[in-house]
Amino acid sequence: MADQDVQTPVGSEPSALSVLRWDELPEGPVLVLLDQTRLPAEEVELVCTDVPALVRAIRTLAVRGAPLLGIAGGYGVALAAARGYDVAEAAGLLEGARPTAVNLGYGVRRVATAYWAAAEKGAGVAAAVALAEARALHREDARASERMAEYGTALLEELLPGQGYQLLTHCNTGALVSGGEGTAFAVALRVHRQGRLRRLWVDETRPLLQGARLTAYEAARNGMAYSLLTDSAAGSLFAAGEVDAVLIGADRIAADGSVANKVGSYPLAVLAKYHHVPFIVVAPTTTVDMETAEGTSIIVEQRSGQEVTEVTSQGGVSEGAGGGKVVAPLGAPVYNPAFDITPSELITAIVTEEGVISPVTGVGLAELCARSSQVTIS
Amino acid sequence: MADQDVQTPVGSEPSALSVLRWDELPEGPVLVLLDQTRLPAEEVELVCTDVPALVRAIRTLAVRGAPLLGIAGGYGVALAAARGYDVAEAAGLLEGARPTAVNLGYGVRRVATAYWAAAEKGAGVAAAVALAEARALHREDARASERMAEYGTALLEELLPGQGYQLLTHCNTGALVSGGEGTAFAVALRVHRQGRLRRLWVDETRPLLQGARLTAYEAARNGMAYSLLTDSAAGSLFAAGEVDAVLIGADRIAADGSVANKVGSYPLAVLAKYHHVPFIVVAPTTTVDMETAEGTSIIVEQRSGQEVTEVTSQGGVSEGAGGGKVVAPLGAPVYNPAFDITPSELITAIVTEEGVISPVTGVGLAELCARSSQVTIS
Repeated sequence: MADQDVQTPVGSEPSALSVLRWDELPEGPVLVLLDQTRLPAEEVELVCTDVPALVRAIRTLAVRGAPLLGIAGGYGVALAAARGYDVAEAAGLLEGARPTAVNLGYGVRRVATAYWAAAEKGAGVAAAVALAEARALHREDARASERMAEYGTALLEELLPGQGYQLLTHCNTGALVSGGEGTAFAVALRVHRQGRLRRLWVDETRPLLQGARLTAYEAARNGMAYSLLTDSAAGSLFAAGEVDAVLIGADRIAADGSVANKVGSYPLAVLAKYHHVPFIVVAPTTTVDMETAEGTSIIVEQRSGQEVTEVTSQGGVSEGAGGGKVVAPLGAPVYNPAFDITPSELITAIVTEEGVISPVTGVGLAELCARSSQVTIS
Repeated sequence: MADQDVQTPVGSEPSALSVLRWDELPEGPVLVLLDQTRLPAEEVELVCTDVPALVRAIRTLAVRGAPLLGIAGGYGVALAAARGYDVAEAAGLLEGARPTAVNLGYGVRRVATAYWAAAEKGAGVAAAVALAEARALHREDARASERMAEYGTALLEELLPGQGYQLLTHCNTGALVSGGEGTAFAVALRVHRQGRLRRLWVDETRPLLQGARLTAYEAARNGMAYSLLTDSAAGSLFAAGEVDAVLIGADRIAADGSVANKVGSYPLAVLAKYHHVPFIVVAPTTTVDMETAEGTSIIVEQRSGQEVTEVTSQGGVSEGAGGGKVVAPLGAPVYNPAFDITPSELITAIVTEEGVISPVTGVGLAELCARSSQVTIS
């Protein structure tokens, strides 16, 4: 067994979530992951001593979330180097673990490139360089979270001066997807720490229930005032004036400022517009895809109908492989888009680690990304 | 055992659903119900030979839906009379089975009143009168469904002339809640029989999944082209121009034309408005509550958080008593309103058995209900 379960809870006090960490044990370095498939029922750590164990963790979605996958991939290369495995083979295995996850490939290649550049100085030095690069990637991501949280709270203060907030969020955008405290969730968490969060409304986020399973878990763990709701109950909250702002993340931002995000984001944007409530997208500049000119040209992935016809209690991010409770007639045809597209005219602002774009325009986005590319390798 | 399960499937051909029927068996009359808690997995009939069995069926939600409960209550009184039980006691038991279901009390009292009025002619005659009254109530409800379907399809033809339709619906409004083919669903079914239904989009309807469990079942059973979707995926359909009209039912209509209906109706109304898609409410005039002046004065029932934190596969209409799969942290606070309120300005038309109100105004509603009260005792 190259991976082991550590059954001791990580801790019940509202300490920072240790979602992923490098550890130096007497028997050698390891990568320790919080097993996200066991949430919210239990906090179990998964100790990866080699790359195949990490690949298994990525495949089973024990570790998930775009930025976090990149960091995990980077540490995976460092682990192979430190343990004296074949780094090229390890990089290949890691990149192939989830081929569509762009961040994973980015993290793997970035650390592998650093390793090869130092290889002539000897395996020990190169391994140390690889680990330093993985740590740099981790730190950069954590710092980006911090800056998004700072810009986001400043924006809320500007839009809604001098009051406590009731914020509504969708899907999972916290520490579980990030090297830091996340994107949209990180803003809500900072508001909470400032003592100004009146309530975080957490959409359950069908079909995979990331809101119920993961965001509610993160909110509870941080001692935030929150309530869980079905996605369509958000309408009643808007009508009752109980939502001051919507905060969501992004899967991809097109050059025209359209945002692809978890299905259910677009209806929230329409509701927010109708009720004159700010709709704020929080995402790092790496999410901006200048190659995609318009939101309408983004092809929306249709996912398995089993995600809708069956409900599973564990592994909220399971790939719908069945095994859940069946809640619809056998063979029911299903429309199950993975995400939806919100056009820029429905978005009050996009908050990035480089600053805020508001109003959201293609020109503003291009300027911000140009600034970002001066400081970040992408 | 006063109730028995008949394990033989009711039939797999797209025949009319036998949701509730009176049957004369050699050993005496019985009320036969389709056990709705077993849907969509299996079609099992429940045979009630006495009132306690029917009360049990009402309490366990084997029979449910406002108009259907009224009919069941009426037949329950007729069953007590036909079997020589104490009719007053039976009426009391039935009315108490679900105290908040106004239709149940109405059906029970209507048939009991007919029974008492004929009591002096002897128990046999009075029992026959009670059965005739229950059958009249049943027929009236079926006829109301037919008329709503006729008015509804005529309205669609007027709003969207000469085309096939993609219709979106929410919750369950078909034969399973009615003495006939229902309200909103009956309109879609008539469009289907006319060969003009391109697709029925079926919202799964969280938290209790009546769309997934019951509407998808009815659509499949009737051979309709349909697709199931999570409630928040409806936004993507509107954005793609794939919804020609929304058809929903109503729990209560206030005197100002506001409609209380299953939670998730209001966000659909806002989406429909934003995309210039007709939003049509289909409900009998008995749903109009002229005593409630405004939608905003309707008190919205908050239901158990377990309906959101746990998902059950059976008895989609369970009262959240737990026992389902847990999908959220233990003790998660939940906001779980049973329904929401859609104001009249978001409603294109209200279709009743007496005609169509469009635009929706309090005056139009009052006129229609006055017309209705000339023909129906309420």
